[in-house]
This record gives sequence, structure tokens and C-alpha cells, in this order.
Amino acid sequence: MWDSLRDGLSKGDVQALARTISLVENEAPGCAPFLASLKLASIPIIGITGPPGAGKSTLTDALIEQYIGQEKKVAVICIDPSSPFNRGALLGDRIRMSHWYNHPGVFIRSLASRGSLGGLNPKVIEITDVLKASVYDVILVETVGVGQSEVEVAGLADVTVVTIVPEAGDEIQTMKAGLMEIADVFVVNKADRPGADTFVNNLRQMLAPAYARKQMEIPVIQTIASEKKGIDTLHNAIEHVLQYKEKNNLRDLLLAEKLWALIQKKRMEGLNKEMLLEKIKNQHHRNLYILLDVITKESL
Amino acid sequence: MWDSLRDGLSKGDVQALARTISLVENEAPGCAPFLASLKLASIPIIGITGPPGAGKSTLTDALIEQYIGQEKKVAVICIDPSSPFNRGALLGDRIRMSHWYNHPGVFIRSLASRGSLGGLNPKVIEITDVLKASVYDVILVETVGVGQSEVEVAGLADVTVVTIVPEAGDEIQTMKAGLMEIADVFVVNKADRPGADTFVNNLRQMLAPAYARKQMEIPVIQTIASEKKGIDTLHNAIEHVLQYKEKNNLRDLLLAEKLWALIQKKRMEGLNKEMLLEKIKNQHHRNLYILLDVITKESL
Repeated sequence: MWDSLRDGLSKGDVQALARTISLVENEAPGCAPFLASLKLASIPIIGITGPPGAGKSTLTDALIEQYIGQEKKVAVICIDPSSPFNRGALLGDRIRMSHWYNHPGVFIRSLASRGSLGGLNPKVIEITDVLKASVYDVILVETVGVGQSEVEVAGLADVTVVTIVPEAGDEIQTMKAGLMEIADVFVVNKADRPGADTFVNNLRQMLAPAYARKQMEIPVIQTIASEKKGIDTLHNAIEHVLQYKEKNNLRDLLLAEKLWALIQKKRMEGLNKEMLLEKIKNQHHRNLYILLDVITKESL
Repeated sequence: MWDSLRDGLSKGDVQALARTISLVENEAPGCAPFLASLKLASIPIIGITGPPGAGKSTLTDALIEQYIGQEKKVAVICIDPSSPFNRGALLGDRIRMSHWYNHPGVFIRSLASRGSLGGLNPKVIEITDVLKASVYDVILVETVGVGQSEVEVAGLADVTVVTIVPEAGDEIQTMKAGLMEIADVFVVNKADRPGADTFVNNLRQMLAPAYARKQMEIPVIQTIASEKKGIDTLHNAIEHVLQYKEKNNLRDLLLAEKLWALIQKKRMEGLNKEMLLEKIKNQHHRNLYILLDVITKESL
């Protein structure tokens, strides 16, 4: 089975791809050696995040069109939050992108975030690697900006694009530093709204300390995604960041982060929190270090 | 050495306490058996978080006064972000609380967050446990709301108090869901500002889905911390949450989360990301699963 799936992947068979992703997501037996047997293309992952209502899906839509216009094949992963917040708005987003579902150069897959605080899907590293073993030229990962997914995407994507809108102007002072710190590119979408220029200038000033730390400029791009305006400029900025990261071995640094996450997951296999809770309840003194010692000895 | 420190802790010797915290923070040899030998009191940890400028330090200050008025001893941990943002404002906060530094019933310690995205200090679980082996009746942990620390505090504190101000009114729709999901108690501070009542009503409506999920009401308390107004009510709300969590074994659930974090840290000991980066650079194919397999076999 795995051999024929690998074969299907390399030929761009969409059904094989969809099936492989499901098997990997559910940790089917044989999954680990299968992943180790894949030849992975060094294609970029572009993360697109930002608060709800910033137009991330419209922007993703416009980026797909851009890549398709260059005769590139595009894979898109949408992370749906498990959080009870903003679910309605999100479904609306998904529908907007649907006209790409049947295009032969585009593969779209939604994944549920499974962490309680709305992070990425626990298998997203493996799933994007499956895509790298197929025929695609670029992977877009769209995460709705609720919970942790907007920060976690920086651990997955070679380029993280943070999308915001000018209305957010007054909030800039209290904008979560997390977003500031993960952005490789800022998009100010709906840039025809009043106050957009002032907003962009303020944002550039706010970003100055981050420039210094990252030793690279963080471009601020104005777009009107619904009219496809500014998408060329955004695409160029993304390419520029990619080249910079390639030249400075920063893409390998990201791989090291991913390897760390994979090792951690592997080393925690077979443990679960319910089990730990039972152990704690059976102990009078509530001293975790005694339990830590017991569990460490058990696993040796 | 460790024996006399343990003795000092149990007698409330502040110098022994400060020295123990430093040794634990730096993982001095003998630290693990020392921690396992401690008798930990089941005192509550109260986390206080929220965006910069919400008045967290003034609120912490007022809470200290409240506990001291009840003849309780209070330990306070302030997490200073390693993030380059808001550093100035933060120092201002610290100074405001300084008149408690010499009070015999109060112990205050600042810890640096060491994670790149401004999380909590990596040893904060162990350090709060050291405090539990001393003479204190309650531990307050104040984290400035930049980066990840505001979400991570929920994994440390028995009661998480999220502080915001009415000016944030327009932002409520885009307020990060993380804050909504971790809050056990909301404080609307500076509640004498115009629009405060409307803000509180909107917030209560927004919280309705979270009520349903948590199966407990999340109280919204109005305070003017600088005038000590509303602090009684806040204190009662905190006590109420504590009793609820105690009754429903939710405090043990938190301990299970902490044990999980401790095991994870222990199992990743001896690995670092620089080492992984070297391994990746020496590999042609950039397939992480081959490396994962190699590293798993090495550690057996």
C-alpha cells in the first residue's frame, strides 16, 4: 500500500495524496518508515495569518492566482480552529476560496487544530512533508488568528505573512508582540480605507526594533486583495525573504525547530495526561518531583 | 547545603529562599533530589496577566495589601519579558510595587522569561514549588501581556486573572481568543473611565460561549486599582474560583499539566537545537524522519 501511495504522490495523483494525508494524520501503522522513505523537494511553505476579518482568505485566493499564472502548482492547507470563537466567519472564508477546489494545479485541504488553545494540527509538519513529496511548487498555510495558531505557524513556514487592516490603527500599541515577532512580511490589506497611509507609517516605526534584531527589514505591503491590487509586490517580497533565508541558512534553522518538535512528540509517546492525573490523585503529598523520578525510572 | 536551605525555607528565612531559587533556576547539582524532598503546602497560585497598560502591577499591589490585611504572607513572582517590546513601561511597573520590598510578610522576585517569544521562565514551576515549601499563604505571579507568557500562565496558576481597561472597547471583537480561554476572572480596571459599563456588558456577552464550555461562570469585576476600589470583590471572586476548582479536582488537573511539562523537559535534556542544526546540515536530503530515527536509536 505505502509503495503505491508513494508512487501516486510523485505522479501528482490527488486521490493518493488525499489518502496519504489521512493515513499520516491518523498515524496508520507503517507511517514512520514511509515518511523516512520520501524524497522531499525543497519547496517553500508560506504561512498566512492575522486577526479574523483581515482578509486572509481573499489574500490566499489572490496568491493562488498569482502562482497559477506562473504555471506553478499550489498546495493549500487551511487550519480550522477547534476554538468555539469565530467559527461562523471562518466557514464564510472557506467558501470564498472554493472556486479553486476543482483546478488541476491546486490542492486544498482543511485540517482541524486539535490543541485546546487553537494551535496548529499536531501532524501538520508531517502533512506538509507529504506535500513536498508530491508535485507542488509552493505550499500555502492559512491559519485564522485566534488562539495560538498564528504564533505556531512561524515554526512551520519559511515565510510568515501577517495580514492586518487599517481599522486596527488605534490598537497598534497593544498589538500582540507575538505577531510582531513572527512576521517576515506585513500586509496591510483593504489599503483603500481612510487612514491607511498613517497606519502603515506607524507600523513601520513600530517595527524598527524588530528590524534591528532580525537583521533584515520587514516589508510592509499595501494590498486590496479583493481587487488583486498589490499582489505582485507581495509576491516579490515573499521571494526576497526566501532568498535571504536561503542565503543565510535560516531555512535549515527552521528544520532544526521542526526536528525538535518531532523528537519531543516521539519521546512523549505512550504518556497521556489522564494517566498522570491518576498518579497524582494516588499520591498524598502532591510532590511532582517524586512522580517525575518514578516515571523516569519506569521508562528506562 | 541543601539540608540547611530546606530548614531555612521552612522557617521563612528570606536569604535561604532567595539562594534556593537561584540554585534551582541554574539547575545546581543535587537540585532534583532536593525538590523531591520538599514538603509542599497546597497554597494557591494566582496569575495576573493582560495587555501592557492595563494596570496589572497596581492591581497586584492592591491584592498584596488585601492579603497582608488578612495577616497572610504573600510571595510575588514578576516575569520580565526578554522581548524588546515594552521594556520601558515594564520597569515603571516594577518601581510602583517597590514599597512592598521591605515588608516582612512579602517576598518579591523578578524572573526573566527566557523563551524567544516571551513565555514564562523555564524553571517557574520548580520555583513556585520552592515557595510552597516556605511560609507563604499565597503566590501571585504577574506576567506582562506580551508574547506567550499571558497564555502560559494558565498552565501555572490555580486562578488566572485577566486585566483589561475600557479603552479596549472597540477591540473586543478582535481580542485574542487565548485571553478569553484562559481567564478564570476578568478584571475591568480603571472602571471610572467613560464607556466602562457598556464595555463590561459587551464582555459578558462575549464570554457566554466560554461559560458553557468551562461549566462555570467567568466573573467580570470592575476595579479602580489605584484607589483600591473593587479589590474586596476581586478577592472574593478569586476565593470562589479556588473553592470551585478544589471541589471539582481541577487543581489536580493543573498538577497533571505541570507534571507533563516537567517530564517533557527531562526527556529533552541533553539535546539542543544547535546540535540538531549540525545534523541537518550534514544531511543531503533534508528528510527529518531519517534523523528522527537516528536520534531515537542513539538515545536507546
